[in-house]
Amino acid sequence: MTKLEHFLAYRSEMTKEEQEEFFYNIPLEEMIEEWRKLEDDEALHLFADLPYDLKIDLLLELPYQDQETILSNISQQNKKQLFHLMEPDDIVDIIQTVSKEVRDSVWVNLSSEAKREMIFLLRFDEDDAAGLMTPRYLAVQGDITVGQAVQFIRANADKVEYVFNIYVIDKLKRFLGTIPMKDLLSAPDDTIINSIMESKSIFVYDDTDQEDVARTIETNDLAAVPVVDHDHILIGIVTFDDVIDVIREEQTEDVYKMGAMSGTSTSYMDTNILGLVKKRVPWLVILLFFGTISANVLHHYESMMIGAAFLIIFMPVITQTGGNAGSQSSTLMIRGLATGEIQFKSIGRIFSRECVVGLIMGILTGLVIILRSIFLPPGVGIHEGVVIGISLMLVVIISNLIGILAPLLINKMGFDPTVMSTPLMATVIDICGYAIYFETARLLLNL
Amino acid sequence: MTKLEHFLAYRSEMTKEEQEEFFYNIPLEEMIEEWRKLEDDEALHLFADLPYDLKIDLLLELPYQDQETILSNISQQNKKQLFHLMEPDDIVDIIQTVSKEVRDSVWVNLSSEAKREMIFLLRFDEDDAAGLMTPRYLAVQGDITVGQAVQFIRANADKVEYVFNIYVIDKLKRFLGTIPMKDLLSAPDDTIINSIMESKSIFVYDDTDQEDVARTIETNDLAAVPVVDHDHILIGIVTFDDVIDVIREEQTEDVYKMGAMSGTSTSYMDTNILGLVKKRVPWLVILLFFGTISANVLHHYESMMIGAAFLIIFMPVITQTGGNAGSQSSTLMIRGLATGEIQFKSIGRIFSRECVVGLIMGILTGLVIILRSIFLPPGVGIHEGVVIGISLMLVVIISNLIGILAPLLINKMGFDPTVMSTPLMATVIDICGYAIYFETARLLLNL
Repeated sequence: MTKLEHFLAYRSEMTKEEQEEFFYNIPLEEMIEEWRKLEDDEALHLFADLPYDLKIDLLLELPYQDQETILSNISQQNKKQLFHLMEPDDIVDIIQTVSKEVRDSVWVNLSSEAKREMIFLLRFDEDDAAGLMTPRYLAVQGDITVGQAVQFIRANADKVEYVFNIYVIDKLKRFLGTIPMKDLLSAPDDTIINSIMESKSIFVYDDTDQEDVARTIETNDLAAVPVVDHDHILIGIVTFDDVIDVIREEQTEDVYKMGAMSGTSTSYMDTNILGLVKKRVPWLVILLFFGTISANVLHHYESMMIGAAFLIIFMPVITQTGGNAGSQSSTLMIRGLATGEIQFKSIGRIFSRECVVGLIMGILTGLVIILRSIFLPPGVGIHEGVVIGISLMLVVIISNLIGILAPLLINKMGFDPTVMSTPLMATVIDICGYAIYFETARLLLNL
Repeated sequence: MTKLEHFLAYRSEMTKEEQEEFFYNIPLEEMIEEWRKLEDDEALHLFADLPYDLKIDLLLELPYQDQETILSNISQQNKKQLFHLMEPDDIVDIIQTVSKEVRDSVWVNLSSEAKREMIFLLRFDEDDAAGLMTPRYLAVQGDITVGQAVQFIRANADKVEYVFNIYVIDKLKRFLGTIPMKDLLSAPDDTIINSIMESKSIFVYDDTDQEDVARTIETNDLAAVPVVDHDHILIGIVTFDDVIDVIREEQTEDVYKMGAMSGTSTSYMDTNILGLVKKRVPWLVILLFFGTISANVLHHYESMMIGAAFLIIFMPVITQTGGNAGSQSSTLMIRGLATGEIQFKSIGRIFSRECVVGLIMGILTGLVIILRSIFLPPGVGIHEGVVIGISLMLVVIISNLIGILAPLLINKMGFDPTVMSTPLMATVIDICGYAIYFETARLLLNL
């Protein structure tokens, strides 16, 4: 029995305080985990019993379809209270994903101030800095003292989500600089704000792409970054928590690309059948088309195959192993290029390293398949086994190098190696693999 | 010419102030990007000119081998100053990665307080919460007033890295709760600290795995999480910036696993040849061994193949396309399971959706290969083309379902589907693929 099921069974015997105490003692990660296992009506019952701050924390972490279910089932009064307590950037996220009916019902329950903030925020593209930002931050002018600034913050801290930094602006609200709370609080009261502003003021523009915003926050270890428009007016801040979500989305997109799908991170359950087909068929057909080139190569060796049928039955495992070696090395390159650790200028050093790595892997896999093919059914003669082993070794060495070079060259030409390498590399490896395999056999067996 | 190259060309004409101004105006991301393109001696020259805060920011973001080069080339005096200004958790990270010589030279330049902190921090596993934490945080006892706490913070803020929260402890330094800076600053001066402590106090243990720490910070949108030992004594805090690094590492590990390599995130350039071979050979051999099962299946159809050679030349593209469809669907499942969006209980719904998706993909790819095989060389007859098309359709439908079921079942059995699905699924798809292909041909062509 999970904790939440336990609660559902005993809730009638608990006081309101005991219920709250119970909920506060479940880590949010665990609650979300258990939540997914509940039936819809159980979930709605539980949601009604949660304290408001937990309602919000939970709602924001649930998948879209659960948000939709909850929001279309709770009372207007509850909805009003919920959205009153929620941060504007979070409300925007919800409004942008739920159905039109739920969106309308959320809208009528917003305060007029929240509506104004929404209208402002909804102008921006959700994948840009402005689409992530909250319009609530603390800013002062540069000519006041630290003492005055601290007083200002203490009077206004409850209006913002986090107090990490204070921003300095001029009379026209143009952004001048940032003061981390740490520097502000450790300065004496009579210090002029201007004098403790950071010498390097980092900001992003409203239309900066969200992945670049993430990179800025990450590289500079910022808890929040200010967002300015093109007149340099401070319009909001993006906080680290939204950036973590962006990094997770990016992660999903990369994984999808590696699985040969077009990379949007919409969740599987929220994508309809047509959406899934659209995401998958283009790559499947492109790969199929490239793949059929192998038919032409094999056609060339048809008579040889018929003469030595053992070649056919070991053919798939040879090219597959080559493909695996190639996909290992291309993965290493793609990841290294993505993290910036690998540069095109190192191509010589990488190539020579990989010649050695490939040789070792080739010899080892070659030995394994010689033993396997001779001693296990369908057994072949020692002669044939050695031919298979030598071909495999050569295929692994060459495939490994193709796996290294393809992403580096594709990247050098300015394309995204995550998307482009897979089909091209697989086809090239297949063609080379068949050619090496049959030519080695021809040479060694005098076919 | 990059900005840094520009600097190297004109540095002698600039005053110290102009140089600093110049550096502060380059975003750190850009500087790192350009840094990688410099030769070692240029990089060392530039490093000498950087202001200390930028030296630290840059050093921490560079790959290990660059850290090593810089640290083994700068003067003792510089090193002393650098490590004096660096946060203890960052020093630990550097100490754990550089060579013994550099480590020793860093050590002699640490202050005795820093050495004490290092000795404390180095006791912990670097993959645990305590391995990420900084021992510098602000804590007060619960019976003082907000006014006293604010005074305490203002006197001590310069000793910590960030001022996000203040922690409440008892006389034995046991952790009692957290007060976000926002709540502290917005409370009146005479409020007792205890009364504004968060009702839900989130913390992690010193030996909590770093990925769980990341999950806690992420789910609860925390800028920092307190770390306690098993006597509940507060020993440090982990901040969001370290957690972002953990999420990136996790990302690399996942990508490696999908590329059939054992998943450690050590950077490519820092791994030696033996390390690379160890990372790659085990999977390569396992996959090879599984893969040879296909030889047994093909052996079964040997006489049929020799009788109808067109079957051989289209065989690879059929199983490859099946493999691609399967890897698409298993990627969707693996990712969905990882993010928690997909649960085993939904297996029925997913299965029926994927029957439809698979059917559509099967029909489309089947049509493409019929047209391709009839009209492009090596051309086959209409009869043969249709046989190939129908087999491909069936193979795609079945492979797609295998791709869905394998990760769900492996996950249900308690294994990690990222690692386990690939080899198993590929082998099962291959075997099924060959069987379907040849059985369809036998049936339709009366072979």
